[in-house]
Amino acid sequence: MSTPVKTLPVQRSPRTDRQASKVAAETLVEQWDFCEIALDGPTGGNPFVDVELTARFSNGQASIDVTGFYDGDGVYRLRFMPPATGRWRYETRSNATELNGETGTFTCIASSARNHGPVRVHNTFHFAYADGTPYRPVGTTCYAWTHQGEELEEQTLATLKSGPFNKMRMCVFPKRYSFNENEPPVYPYEGTPPAPRKMSGNGNGNGNGNGAVINENGASGHISSGAKWDTSRFNPAFFRHLEQRIGQLRDMGIEADLILFHPYDLGHWGFDRMDEQADDLYLRYVVARLSAFRNVWWSMANEFDFMKEKKPADWDRYFQIVQEADPYDHLRSVHNGKHIYDHNKPWVTHASIQNGLAVADFGRAVLYRDVYYKPIVFDEVKYEGDIEQRWGNISGEEMVHRMWQGTISGTYVGHGETYQRDDDVLWWAKGGELHGTSPKRIAFLRDVLESGPVDGIDPIDKWDDPTVAGKHGEYYLIYFGKQKPTEWRFELPKEALVDGTRFRLEILDTWDMTVTWVEQTFEIVVDTKYRAHAVGNPTVKLPDKPWIALRLTRVR
Amino acid sequence: MSTPVKTLPVQRSPRTDRQASKVAAETLVEQWDFCEIALDGPTGGNPFVDVELTARFSNGQASIDVTGFYDGDGVYRLRFMPPATGRWRYETRSNATELNGETGTFTCIASSARNHGPVRVHNTFHFAYADGTPYRPVGTTCYAWTHQGEELEEQTLATLKSGPFNKMRMCVFPKRYSFNENEPPVYPYEGTPPAPRKMSGNGNGNGNGNGAVINENGASGHISSGAKWDTSRFNPAFFRHLEQRIGQLRDMGIEADLILFHPYDLGHWGFDRMDEQADDLYLRYVVARLSAFRNVWWSMANEFDFMKEKKPADWDRYFQIVQEADPYDHLRSVHNGKHIYDHNKPWVTHASIQNGLAVADFGRAVLYRDVYYKPIVFDEVKYEGDIEQRWGNISGEEMVHRMWQGTISGTYVGHGETYQRDDDVLWWAKGGELHGTSPKRIAFLRDVLESGPVDGIDPIDKWDDPTVAGKHGEYYLIYFGKQKPTEWRFELPKEALVDGTRFRLEILDTWDMTVTWVEQTFEIVVDTKYRAHAVGNPTVKLPDKPWIALRLTRVR
Repeated sequence: MSTPVKTLPVQRSPRTDRQASKVAAETLVEQWDFCEIALDGPTGGNPFVDVELTARFSNGQASIDVTGFYDGDGVYRLRFMPPATGRWRYETRSNATELNGETGTFTCIASSARNHGPVRVHNTFHFAYADGTPYRPVGTTCYAWTHQGEELEEQTLATLKSGPFNKMRMCVFPKRYSFNENEPPVYPYEGTPPAPRKMSGNGNGNGNGNGAVINENGASGHISSGAKWDTSRFNPAFFRHLEQRIGQLRDMGIEADLILFHPYDLGHWGFDRMDEQADDLYLRYVVARLSAFRNVWWSMANEFDFMKEKKPADWDRYFQIVQEADPYDHLRSVHNGKHIYDHNKPWVTHASIQNGLAVADFGRAVLYRDVYYKPIVFDEVKYEGDIEQRWGNISGEEMVHRMWQGTISGTYVGHGETYQRDDDVLWWAKGGELHGTSPKRIAFLRDVLESGPVDGIDPIDKWDDPTVAGKHGEYYLIYFGKQKPTEWRFELPKEALVDGTRFRLEILDTWDMTVTWVEQTFEIVVDTKYRAHAVGNPTVKLPDKPWIALRLTRVR
Repeated sequence: MSTPVKTLPVQRSPRTDRQASKVAAETLVEQWDFCEIALDGPTGGNPFVDVELTARFSNGQASIDVTGFYDGDGVYRLRFMPPATGRWRYETRSNATELNGETGTFTCIASSARNHGPVRVHNTFHFAYADGTPYRPVGTTCYAWTHQGEELEEQTLATLKSGPFNKMRMCVFPKRYSFNENEPPVYPYEGTPPAPRKMSGNGNGNGNGNGAVINENGASGHISSGAKWDTSRFNPAFFRHLEQRIGQLRDMGIEADLILFHPYDLGHWGFDRMDEQADDLYLRYVVARLSAFRNVWWSMANEFDFMKEKKPADWDRYFQIVQEADPYDHLRSVHNGKHIYDHNKPWVTHASIQNGLAVADFGRAVLYRDVYYKPIVFDEVKYEGDIEQRWGNISGEEMVHRMWQGTISGTYVGHGETYQRDDDVLWWAKGGELHGTSPKRIAFLRDVLESGPVDGIDPIDKWDDPTVAGKHGEYYLIYFGKQKPTEWRFELPKEALVDGTRFRLEILDTWDMTVTWVEQTFEIVVDTKYRAHAVGNPTVKLPDKPWIALRLTRVR
């Protein structure tokens, strides 16, 4: 990073000005931020489908092709996230003469301290940012938070700012489901919104248990609401709003795990049952607009198998369209209802799994690792809350327990919250404030994860001791879950341990968030076929409480 | 089935006569048995590779192409397993004039009572014979039993005859491993056997724990034994012996889960490190010889990932060769060491899994079902025994418990036995006699499985109650495992239950093998959101012992 250019104004993404403008030659863009080129172009016909616009960005070594998009009012935009510092040049190509052959240059400077680039898969089961910094997903879910209007959305952002989360699962399209009756302030397409009426089959959305318009098995019925869209004409205002929110998450270090389709519509708006042409146009438009945001992940759907209008082959196609259209190869997965997608398919970067059982007890979650050999992210394991639906009424303790179970299984577990509210503002759907007891314990877990081994936490002896994870010979986490041990005799699976290696031990109370250092160093003796002990066979007193973990770190 | 032909002599397969002979026109062959055509042909050059021989069998509706094989002494054979009764005609094609254009006919009659045809996948997660009879795999493992000589092999057959097993995992190639030092009586190829010597790195094979030439992580070293084979020339006597044993299993109703490759060789014979040409020739020869046996399953390997000489793509190729060469589409899978093969690949019919943890507790095994949507067969879950190796020292109780865990997870678990013996005759490798306590309890489990629902036993409420399996609304198995409940309040997941449905209840002691009928009929009342109860909320006394299961059957 060259010092002189630092004083020049840096273009922060996203640009929000509505003026068409080329990038000035002296513009500085941080690596993994994006620069935006705005060009005036044709307004006749249907610019969303008639006009093709791409640009090739090159720095002498690499060249990257980027697709532009129509942003309304005769303005076309191209966004580019530079993957390397230095001088970049671009040239546009278009079937519209006004947009063709535009060229320019800009300079990419080193990223600032809080910008580590996009998240990639690292070490098979884990993640790291592009700059190599480990990333440990500690996610939450507010499916429809960007469709709630300014006040509530700002509250959600404030909550996130002080919360433990670094990933947000969120839908592009609005959501209609139990506790979700309100129309969004703005729609993604030009057209006629639904006529105002009560949500079919729900009542007042007060969580009386009969409110779901989609039942737990995903059976669906067609609802005709009178909505009418031109699915070939997007509403740029809708997407600009979405971009603003994604950018705000980015600036807080939160990945936006963007859900491209979902079944919580049932034909009310009909975004769950568009035709193939509309689906594909939508995907390409979203990717063209959003792929330059470094914090975007692509989730093809939530509960994809509950979208009865889609065929299995549609999901393969969606993945392939997104993969081909995204020049930055952002993370891609799809979240299931009851039927898991085949995450072994080559376009899936990590397994995004809903399972209500897998992290509720020892030795389960680990099984997915050996099937997929990709990072396992449990994006739904039931929610902390008190609604009648059993997927939304686990305790805070159980929520935290499940996240620890995921941790010692070498996987990652996301949070969600569904406390009953008179105003129907449940965090899981609308955001707002958090009311549960788990978030601050999740912050404690995040600290443990982020101070753990750079390569991630893996099971140590997967078929014989599901309570132990870490890094062989270096770092061990032992979790006791609901048990309340009063003592622990020093013992570890022996693999990679050698006589004389020394460890320090901390007792972690994962609920009361304390770390107690045991004032003793333990020296390894490998004395049995499968387990190692410490010299003198020491025993450590434990506090006779549940939710206790031990952390052993090698002393050098 | 036409009565007159019943009095004619039926050709029983396999034929063991060494005389070349066409099938006589009046020959009767049972459906799913096989007829064999023996033809005299050329002996010059290398008949195993130079001569191509196929025959097309047709019955007017279907035609099936079958590949012949050279059986030594100038004799070529073709075996055909008719899939339908009636008159079949065949015509041979060959690049050797003596073998070309031979024709004949025979009649396929209905199968006898004990012949249900080959096993197929049924109802996604289960199996049935070709005639529709359910097949519930209750397998065992004697990897090298066919390489032990007449006396021990006959003892193994006698043990199997009175035992509970209906599937046998067994290797084509001989095995060299801890407790396995003996050379086989006969070898699969022409050539020079290894010079007599003690097994490297083993000692006396008395199970002192240092005997494994392959460690648990599959690391391997090359052993040069002086063996030299012509891998383009098979030894027909070896394969005739194997066929005799497969035929004997078939006649006892036992499926032969044939392991085509394995790592327990380490270059001693070198069958684990043949070149691609030899591997492929071997697979085609084995399939040509054996595919007409209705009880054959193809297991590409045991612990395939421990065969460090093979590349991942080799396994895909083996599957594809076998699939393409086998006109009967026998079941295909591959068994793993630490790294599971991708059973989602289209040529895999069922998942054959080794996992030492998955069936040791509730809620684990079920996870594989949702990943593969194929039958899940745990072919190795540790063995009942007392050797020092931890994969071979679980108790009889634990063995049976694991098979019940598999059952209530909607999967199938195989048995193995490794009791220390001075003569090194461990059932798991060599066969002989069974010494454990699990087999008779496994017979009890097999009775439960076979008297269960025709469609198989599936989890009932997979994310919320891993103790219950069966068929919704009709049949429930509840298993308590190591718990010792003294009573049970009638309660079931409510799905598919309606008020007024009546059930009878039996208490199964899975260890003491008793079935106790509770003299009461229970009438369902669906009174809560997720669970149903019985009218009057009755409680049933249980015997305060572990290994108890309940069986509820709908009364009509």
